[in-house]
Amino acid sequence: MTDTVNTATEASAEEVVAGLTLEEKASLTSGADFWTTKSIDRAGIPSILLTDGPHGVRLQRAESDHLGIGDSVPATCFPPAVALGSSFDPELLERVGTALGEEAQAEGVGVLLGPGINIKRSPLCGRNFEYLSEDPIVSGVLGSALVRGLQSQGVGASLKHFAANNQEADRMRVSADIDERPLREIYLRGFQRVVEDEQPWTVMCSYNRLNGVYTSEDPWLLATVLRDEWGFEGLVVSDWGAVNTRVDALVAGLDLEMPASGGRTEAQLVAAVQDGSLEESVLDLGARRNVELVQKVVANAKADAAYDADAHHALAREVAAASIVLLKNEGGVLPLAPDASVAVIGELARTPRYQGAGSSQINPTRLDNALDEIRALAGADVPFAPGYASDASVSEELTAEAVAVASAASTVLLFLGVPAEQESEGFDRDDLELPAGQTELLDAVLAANASVVVVLSNGGVVRLSGFADRVPAILEGWLLGQAGGGAVADVLYGVVNPSARLTETVPVRLADSPAFLDFPGEHGHVRYGEGLFVGYRWYDARDLEVTYPFGHGLSYTSFAYSDAAATADDSGLTVRVTVTNTGDRDGAEVVQVYTSLAGSAVVRAPRELKGFAKVALAAGESREVAVHVRREDLAYWDTRVDRWVVEGGSYTVEVGASSRDIRSAATVEVEGDAVSAPLSMNSSIGELIAHPVAGPIVLAAFTGGDGGGAAGAIMGDPAMFKMMASFPVGRLASFPGMPVTMEQVEQLIAASNGQGA
Amino acid sequence: MTDTVNTATEASAEEVVAGLTLEEKASLTSGADFWTTKSIDRAGIPSILLTDGPHGVRLQRAESDHLGIGDSVPATCFPPAVALGSSFDPELLERVGTALGEEAQAEGVGVLLGPGINIKRSPLCGRNFEYLSEDPIVSGVLGSALVRGLQSQGVGASLKHFAANNQEADRMRVSADIDERPLREIYLRGFQRVVEDEQPWTVMCSYNRLNGVYTSEDPWLLATVLRDEWGFEGLVVSDWGAVNTRVDALVAGLDLEMPASGGRTEAQLVAAVQDGSLEESVLDLGARRNVELVQKVVANAKADAAYDADAHHALAREVAAASIVLLKNEGGVLPLAPDASVAVIGELARTPRYQGAGSSQINPTRLDNALDEIRALAGADVPFAPGYASDASVSEELTAEAVAVASAASTVLLFLGVPAEQESEGFDRDDLELPAGQTELLDAVLAANASVVVVLSNGGVVRLSGFADRVPAILEGWLLGQAGGGAVADVLYGVVNPSARLTETVPVRLADSPAFLDFPGEHGHVRYGEGLFVGYRWYDARDLEVTYPFGHGLSYTSFAYSDAAATADDSGLTVRVTVTNTGDRDGAEVVQVYTSLAGSAVVRAPRELKGFAKVALAAGESREVAVHVRREDLAYWDTRVDRWVVEGGSYTVEVGASSRDIRSAATVEVEGDAVSAPLSMNSSIGELIAHPVAGPIVLAAFTGGDGGGAAGAIMGDPAMFKMMASFPVGRLASFPGMPVTMEQVEQLIAASNGQGA
Repeated sequence: MTDTVNTATEASAEEVVAGLTLEEKASLTSGADFWTTKSIDRAGIPSILLTDGPHGVRLQRAESDHLGIGDSVPATCFPPAVALGSSFDPELLERVGTALGEEAQAEGVGVLLGPGINIKRSPLCGRNFEYLSEDPIVSGVLGSALVRGLQSQGVGASLKHFAANNQEADRMRVSADIDERPLREIYLRGFQRVVEDEQPWTVMCSYNRLNGVYTSEDPWLLATVLRDEWGFEGLVVSDWGAVNTRVDALVAGLDLEMPASGGRTEAQLVAAVQDGSLEESVLDLGARRNVELVQKVVANAKADAAYDADAHHALAREVAAASIVLLKNEGGVLPLAPDASVAVIGELARTPRYQGAGSSQINPTRLDNALDEIRALAGADVPFAPGYASDASVSEELTAEAVAVASAASTVLLFLGVPAEQESEGFDRDDLELPAGQTELLDAVLAANASVVVVLSNGGVVRLSGFADRVPAILEGWLLGQAGGGAVADVLYGVVNPSARLTETVPVRLADSPAFLDFPGEHGHVRYGEGLFVGYRWYDARDLEVTYPFGHGLSYTSFAYSDAAATADDSGLTVRVTVTNTGDRDGAEVVQVYTSLAGSAVVRAPRELKGFAKVALAAGESREVAVHVRREDLAYWDTRVDRWVVEGGSYTVEVGASSRDIRSAATVEVEGDAVSAPLSMNSSIGELIAHPVAGPIVLAAFTGGDGGGAAGAIMGDPAMFKMMASFPVGRLASFPGMPVTMEQVEQLIAASNGQGA
Repeated sequence: MTDTVNTATEASAEEVVAGLTLEEKASLTSGADFWTTKSIDRAGIPSILLTDGPHGVRLQRAESDHLGIGDSVPATCFPPAVALGSSFDPELLERVGTALGEEAQAEGVGVLLGPGINIKRSPLCGRNFEYLSEDPIVSGVLGSALVRGLQSQGVGASLKHFAANNQEADRMRVSADIDERPLREIYLRGFQRVVEDEQPWTVMCSYNRLNGVYTSEDPWLLATVLRDEWGFEGLVVSDWGAVNTRVDALVAGLDLEMPASGGRTEAQLVAAVQDGSLEESVLDLGARRNVELVQKVVANAKADAAYDADAHHALAREVAAASIVLLKNEGGVLPLAPDASVAVIGELARTPRYQGAGSSQINPTRLDNALDEIRALAGADVPFAPGYASDASVSEELTAEAVAVASAASTVLLFLGVPAEQESEGFDRDDLELPAGQTELLDAVLAANASVVVVLSNGGVVRLSGFADRVPAILEGWLLGQAGGGAVADVLYGVVNPSARLTETVPVRLADSPAFLDFPGEHGHVRYGEGLFVGYRWYDARDLEVTYPFGHGLSYTSFAYSDAAATADDSGLTVRVTVTNTGDRDGAEVVQVYTSLAGSAVVRAPRELKGFAKVALAAGESREVAVHVRREDLAYWDTRVDRWVVEGGSYTVEVGASSRDIRSAATVEVEGDAVSAPLSMNSSIGELIAHPVAGPIVLAAFTGGDGGGAAGAIMGDPAMFKMMASFPVGRLASFPGMPVTMEQVEQLIAASNGQGA
């Protein structure tokens, strides 16, 4: 201890902590209130501000609401992650992150709570609109871009929700029971990439338990995996209210509990140190990480920061347009000519759903709607009928009005979507259905006019199989943020050529979806029974029809692929393919690279996305595109040796426009990692025979001698050999009449392990 | 210790054991050789003989084969379990058990190693031909009947393979990783029924591990579940070579290791007692159970037993005919008139496959083939063409010959099936396909003659979707034992009216099957990811088309159902339904009772078989059939309280001719078991509000006061209420600004638990 107290920004965090009392150190590890950390004036440690994200800065107005869900300061509401992800555009997401950082700086926010990169395990998850994809590479690459942009402005990210928070039902208690391979390869892989590439200032633990342990107090997750394996150097903050037992959480590596506990849990920490059940050094470490975070925030704060709200609104429009997925476009119904005769139907065109409910809800600086924006772009009058009320209810009058409007137009722009009250943090959806009134409205409108363009507003995927084959065009508009209305108009009229792709499969029906039978679990547990087969991995492996596959999305132009080739080196694969814009419009293609390994020794999906590139090509332009696949992304988690292993072999590399639209393919030889699995008395006869040293000796023992008895019977009968090949050698050697003794087998194994591969 | 040694049959087993030395006691717990236990002459303990079953007595000839798979004494080869199960006839299976007991007595066999009642988790399991069903009620009821019959003759059964041995791949080591509910409700339920109802003399542990522990040394399985919960009083024997660590196995409750260990493991037990690591009383118990078994065998042995081989052959024919499932019969192609013009095609008609390979392989006393038996029943000449060779290979000549024969007949009886080398203990199948040559032969024959009756020989289900809609009739003949040829002829010519039903679903394709993506696992583990949804439970829950559903099977007559009604009492349900034979032939119907519970608080299959009755009805006869459903069969395993719980509510009782042919339904109110789940600080706000005592107090706290702040925000907004309802009360109470303190919540919970329901 020293009497000299330096300010936090001058001294090292370690020095600062050394100058604090036990009580002061404990106080640093819980919030001061809902959104700020505790200051210690005498030590020069200021309070910092953390606020909800992730697609805007939700700075709550003072004291409006003790729960922190109330009125907030206006901020740009960018498209939520469901839309951002569909852009498949890291560069664009980095710009969004940068803009978020600028707004956070302007509001004095030190840490913005996002991005959320949890895997969309079930389309029912109520918070899917806050997540990027059903695929870990997409989630990881795009999550990294957001963190990179945000932190470029000196604002900390909070990568969340770590981990396996894939449902809202019973989210505070449920245990996500996941086997090691899917946990590593699907649910943690994206987090690993973002942590290793971007070092987010903070990681936010989730509410749920993982394999029985609250993530807030899981030393395996927070220490072994996050810090020891991935090298995370930042601070772990709890989701708001996620701490179960404060002392256990601190020991596991949970540095900051939010929100405030009113002094209760700090007192627990102090008592635990005093009674010897908690090492003070553990508290020192937690306190130090808090001081380090404060120092980073202080050092990077921009005192007079401001942002250009108009420019951010324009960016929000650009991003929204890049996030709209053109699912279908038959007969060239889109883009619309400026003077086309169109009618707009659907209250959602006038009263947009542009974000989901819950902690991420932004108070936007402006709010566009599609109706006004369409009218601004159209050269002619655009009649409108709401078709249904704001609460999605319908009536004969509304339907009749809509049908009349539809009948008079050449093309109908019909806005459908999921009502706001069905999509929120805190609970999951019950089904994938659009409101029945809306689909009845669609039927009525279609009867009057077959040229219907459906524009969707929804945070999670909806079932489209009921009408996808009956309408010429569908725009998946997700939730597009405050400028989404203009973006929709831009895409409809071809001001922007759509270039987004699905980051999640649109199934034919809910019953086809991988987690259908064990979502959301019961009695505090949810078994991830589908294992590795999440999203397209499932639909492909089970060869199920889907309405629209992962990666799907159209353009107003067309692209051709040719000459895919792949080479391997220590860093992974380099995949090259020539892509040509074969249409008469400039556009962008998302070139997707999938790999597979025929005859793999482990279970694998038929194809897995390993890389992608968004490529802008002028009409007629042709370009060779190179996509790098990291070697570590080829690895599977080997449960025998508890580490990542790249299996050697001839990999198939498929390049295409969606997971089910492969345009060009190549094979590439990849050298495998060595995995040493020594022989033991539990090795099977078959494993011994396959061993370079033991094999010939075992075969000689079985075929030598008189060729009769058990050994002769085994070797002489293929079916019997197949049956006995799985016997552990130690068990079979103990059988009466075997040609070898246990001792001989033990010697053979020892010798083989000494000499063998 | 006493010097007076009584003979085993006179003294109690406990007294006998008390007179043995440590080494003698240890010696009793391992076999003397492959098939016999060790005698102790001075103690009057003889050796007893255990031999393979289950569908015949496989008494190996002395020293023919050290592995025990060699030549054996002739015995009646009854139909394997795959066929027996399809009869859905407990009375018939009891007669088979009785006949097996007679043969065992005649051969001096004390314990016959069967029945096998493992669940058919995947249609690929190589040993499915030895198992009864994909449903635990069917397996349990029919397994009980076999044990009852066998033990009625004073021969012990060995209920196997306990437990969760549902695949052959890596069967000696693989861990079946199964959650508690599917384990209890699907995989153990049949075992529980047989043990509780029939007290088999022995239970055989399986090779595999269960949730990481070898079943041979799993005290939870062998002691807690089998003995403490189910009251098993017999002996646990290892599957041959299943013991991993002998001392651990004995402690867990594995009484007898088979085969002999050559003295090695007995020495381990002696050493363990001597060094104090094993309580001698544990060894005493294992030895006592061995003595008890020997005493039972000795006391029940019939010195001059013999059996009537002709009568048993006739029984084998009767059972086989009752086991053939008429899957399809369009246009009245079957039954054949005696003078019908028929041709027989397919080597399997001449060279039958009548059992699977492996330890259950019987050396039959006789062997009928279908071709001879058809010719014996037909009034006219029956031409034959093999179509394919014994090894399933085809040639142009064979095909041409078959086509010529087919062209000349009115009806073709085409025998197809899985080659013997693809179905055996010891390995699983790779697919569900018939040999390609056979399906090509079918196509060629169909081109010549559309009136094709396909007769199948297979131990596991095969994919029929490739031709089921192109042939007028299909007989699923499974593997039918030594008299199957005559049984097939009897059914084809209507000497026997078919009455069997599928105990497993015939899927459209392998990729639809529940375990498709995690069978057989890898690296020593197989996750039962489909959970409860095994067999028809899966196809129904996912609403998948199947080729033939569980319970399906036709008759040459027809049945009508009416007036289903159900009543409940403490013993369960009594379901009554009137069944009428509406055709002009005597026949038997399998009346199937399924239950479901709409709005259940736990995950359930859409319908579950809970009882069945096989009812013989003369042409035109009508009868009220009563099926009793045990109350315990309505229960689910409640993981909160670790016990069986009957959920109260209005159950739907469906009565039908298959799982997808429900003919009549009723509802019945069932009183539920009380489940007391006390409130805690981890109870959610929603759970508190639902509680009769706590609820009103919580609501008052949230709506009282000024109605503002957090509480007001929660109660005033349905979406926010939905979001907050899942918060554990202890966590929310710790939030700043809540209207109640942690201490108040603690008091409320204590008070509620004292007064509440």
